[in-house]
Amino acid sequence: MSFCDLAVSGVANLQPYVPGKPIEELQRQYGVRNVIKLASNENPLGPPKAAVAAVAMAAKEMARYPDGNGYALKLALAEKHQVAPEQITLGNGSNDVLEMVARAFAGAGDEIIFSEHAFAVYGIVTQAIGASPVVTQAKDYGYDLDAIHKAISSRTKIIFIANPNNPTGTWLEPEKIKLFLEKVPEKVLVVLDEAYVEYLNMEENSVPWLQDFHNLIITRTFSKAYGLAGLRVGYSLSHPEVDDLMNRVRQPFNVSNLAQAAAVAALGDEAYLQQTRDVNQAGMKQLVAGFEKMGLQYIPSRANFITVNVHTNAFEVYDELLYEGVIVRPVANYGLPQHLRVSIGLAEENQRFLDALSGILGRG
Amino acid sequence: MSFCDLAVSGVANLQPYVPGKPIEELQRQYGVRNVIKLASNENPLGPPKAAVAAVAMAAKEMARYPDGNGYALKLALAEKHQVAPEQITLGNGSNDVLEMVARAFAGAGDEIIFSEHAFAVYGIVTQAIGASPVVTQAKDYGYDLDAIHKAISSRTKIIFIANPNNPTGTWLEPEKIKLFLEKVPEKVLVVLDEAYVEYLNMEENSVPWLQDFHNLIITRTFSKAYGLAGLRVGYSLSHPEVDDLMNRVRQPFNVSNLAQAAAVAALGDEAYLQQTRDVNQAGMKQLVAGFEKMGLQYIPSRANFITVNVHTNAFEVYDELLYEGVIVRPVANYGLPQHLRVSIGLAEENQRFLDALSGILGRG
Repeated sequence: MSFCDLAVSGVANLQPYVPGKPIEELQRQYGVRNVIKLASNENPLGPPKAAVAAVAMAAKEMARYPDGNGYALKLALAEKHQVAPEQITLGNGSNDVLEMVARAFAGAGDEIIFSEHAFAVYGIVTQAIGASPVVTQAKDYGYDLDAIHKAISSRTKIIFIANPNNPTGTWLEPEKIKLFLEKVPEKVLVVLDEAYVEYLNMEENSVPWLQDFHNLIITRTFSKAYGLAGLRVGYSLSHPEVDDLMNRVRQPFNVSNLAQAAAVAALGDEAYLQQTRDVNQAGMKQLVAGFEKMGLQYIPSRANFITVNVHTNAFEVYDELLYEGVIVRPVANYGLPQHLRVSIGLAEENQRFLDALSGILGRG
Repeated sequence: MSFCDLAVSGVANLQPYVPGKPIEELQRQYGVRNVIKLASNENPLGPPKAAVAAVAMAAKEMARYPDGNGYALKLALAEKHQVAPEQITLGNGSNDVLEMVARAFAGAGDEIIFSEHAFAVYGIVTQAIGASPVVTQAKDYGYDLDAIHKAISSRTKIIFIANPNNPTGTWLEPEKIKLFLEKVPEKVLVVLDEAYVEYLNMEENSVPWLQDFHNLIITRTFSKAYGLAGLRVGYSLSHPEVDDLMNRVRQPFNVSNLAQAAAVAALGDEAYLQQTRDVNQAGMKQLVAGFEKMGLQYIPSRANFITVNVHTNAFEVYDELLYEGVIVRPVANYGLPQHLRVSIGLAEENQRFLDALSGILGRG
């Protein structure tokens, strides 16, 4: 007997998410020292100091279960976004929130729409619950909202849209999304995944839409601009009824007490957020200039990473970079076998990556 | 339109888990100060010092994603239990592991067996995935393994057994469980939830069974004896194929980097574990003596809590205790409307609870 035969059919065929290689793993496996990681769109500044201090305080209480209702964190988020706490659902990273939407609202026989070159987790959660993925073609590496609208059927339950998109960094103008929302039937949930929205350096556009579009779910994370990837905190903003249903599949203690404390502290650290944006903007310029010098095409990005065409088998280049102690992300599993996704690092990290890439490709 | 109509049917009817009331919530809602919490089977000693130190070290790295493979923690657990790392599945608390088993192996049309008066999460995960719960009658507040065996049908996918059981604290002799495992068909997974096993102060009995029973899944947690409830770490030990399938529904970064670091440190702190057992044993004697003095019946417990019959509406007694600043757990939702579950605290906490209870019940 194989246990695969006992598993739910979608699960038995599921290919798990492939994370960026951790620094320790590269050191262990390749014997490489002085490793830099530009693979997981992490904040190169390290965590906000206020969050580190909050963790030290909260650690004394870690024999107690976390507040399952996330009172203090929801209060801080409600103030920031000018929504009611009942519109906020907390997740163990936004991955958890994306999964909750799928599990609460879709199952076998239902369809979930997302785009080519979109975040891998959309496909994974779809398959895990036995729903049918409907994948629309990309336009210029980004979303084709007309194609998505045409793909809506009577079986469609959820549409996932990331803006900016991962792993391509493309961005949809808010006006286009608003027009799209007006055309989507009310009974189809639209998940707007804004994991990278803080890098846009602009006023928020999407949150007020929640008043008009009750089928809209906006997801956010503390893993990117807020520098807390290791702690796992994400959240969604939605209609209170949607929140209520998501909470029924939420594990009662899904967000740790340290994560809640650190997130509250990070929300109050505006200076860190501005420094994050500044470092990202400078690093983006640096990488773009390097790519242009090497004659490499890249996908213009509004996020904290950029995806570059190396005009050859990108996995081999990725592997050669590993030997140089530089971890980036191959994206063949996103239908981009000649591209590498590179997170924006500190200036010296970006330079080290550019030098290594230039050496490997023989372009200078 | 109601969003309930859009939700998956099991989810729309689901009653979420009701956690123990957090101390801050009681202070906020009732204006009570100097609150003690004996409601969530937490370790009254506070976290192990080694774990607090490990968290402070790991906090510097919390802008990085956790190691999704949990390399260091699995290595430490593999050594402790003398199993292969491929037999260990890490969870965001053991709640996460219980949910992974259900999601990987069961769905609509399948049956999941558990007992009356057993941990609420078994029923919640069953309903969330649309499977059918089969609830067997308890015997002396504990498991009736013969009844469970008789309840197995061709549709049975999973059996959940907690030993010691929560919320009753009852314990099944290992020999009885082994005889039971020999009778269960190989294609039915048996989850042995050992969240409280460290309190037994005895040699492990169940882990070597994994070699004979490939359908056995043992779950453990760092939330109880290891004092890390706030951090969310649990795990299962199983056949590697079962681990592989559970990992396909596992969120890639389900356990935070701080939780992994703290768990490794806690595993190394044998003195803390022994102190935990000593404090628990003394506190259990203290509570039992108090109950006997008041003439209250209780369910003999092998865990870090005890469930006592207050011979009246227990919810009202719970509420009166709240006004005295003492949080315990009403268990009417477990079919025990006249019982309260009390976690073993420090000596002075136990005494304060006994004094308050004695005053409320008018028994001295």
